[in-house]
Amino acid sequence: MSRWSPNSRGRLEQAAYELFLGQGYEQTTVADIAKRAGLTERTFFRHYADKREVLFGGSAALQDQLLRELDRLPSTLPTIEAVRIAVEAIASLLHGRRALARERQRIVAAHADLQERELIKRATLTAALAQALQRRGVPEPAASLAADMGIGVFYVGFGHWLTDPADRELVEIVHEGFDQLKAVASGI
Amino acid sequence: MSRWSPNSRGRLEQAAYELFLGQGYEQTTVADIAKRAGLTERTFFRHYADKREVLFGGSAALQDQLLRELDRLPSTLPTIEAVRIAVEAIASLLHGRRALARERQRIVAAHADLQERELIKRATLTAALAQALQRRGVPEPAASLAADMGIGVFYVGFGHWLTDPADRELVEIVHEGFDQLKAVASGI
Repeated sequence: MSRWSPNSRGRLEQAAYELFLGQGYEQTTVADIAKRAGLTERTFFRHYADKREVLFGGSAALQDQLLRELDRLPSTLPTIEAVRIAVEAIASLLHGRRALARERQRIVAAHADLQERELIKRATLTAALAQALQRRGVPEPAASLAADMGIGVFYVGFGHWLTDPADRELVEIVHEGFDQLKAVASGI
Repeated sequence: MSRWSPNSRGRLEQAAYELFLGQGYEQTTVADIAKRAGLTERTFFRHYADKREVLFGGSAALQDQLLRELDRLPSTLPTIEAVRIAVEAIASLLHGRRALARERQRIVAAHADLQERELIKRATLTAALAQALQRRGVPEPAASLAADMGIGVFYVGFGHWLTDPADRELVEIVHEGFDQLKAVASGI
């Protein structure tokens, strides 16, 4: 974003997580984060509205990726297949980030307001997907149901990924999730 | 609940909605509600923690009904069929309440904190259903996916019910929703 501080956003995120884990989320100020990242508070606020936003800053990227992926898929694909490919694309964004995601989950689980924000982000993502499907010509309620299912598979998979002892990547868990969704929906 | 005020809960709910609609949600106090219902504030607080709770007081009843219905179903039923019957049972609780549900929706849509609470109630209902399915012996992630789908069909159907020009009952819309879910999931 700013030419004089390459990857300042990534450095701020890294510094924030180190502090959240080391001294606790509540005890960490924006000043602490900026200092640890070797940047100014002003730079922090160019990237994030507040420290809470550091935990949720990835969700806009997820949504962009989801919709971009959907847009490039042929409209002849069955709806659920298009949703599957788009959701797998966002799952792959989290490749190699499980340790970070686990720590994030621990912080979110300990704060009611963060849990609420998480639910809002999920609802926003679902609504964006439903609208994108409608734009592809999928009628209601199929568009809303497919969006709900797709984001549901993503979040259920995400929960399992965080605790999965087998160390599989999220994209693999999500891929299986769609098979399981089909099996459950067809009454197997 | 109290012998000397039959159906005080229903009267409070009725009075609250009349006031929310007439003078606005924000302008309405617990004292106003109690007065209009011909009851004391003390009686109000025996039924509801605050005025917000009037809007969400039905969700505990929905959850109880959902789990009770599920418990009485044979465990040999395919998971999605059990979920469908249980979700239809809660949809039928809303029979004849569409006008009230519409007004409630209008109030919730206008207040971010109420929308958050709505999302929390949905997440709670989904988690309760997933746990009940696990107790029935449904393995993970099928239990979580089926719960997510079932509550998803309920809420998508609820949204359509509120705006449905055909005046169908929610239970009918939800019943069709499960057919549509199966069709979407199987790639039709």
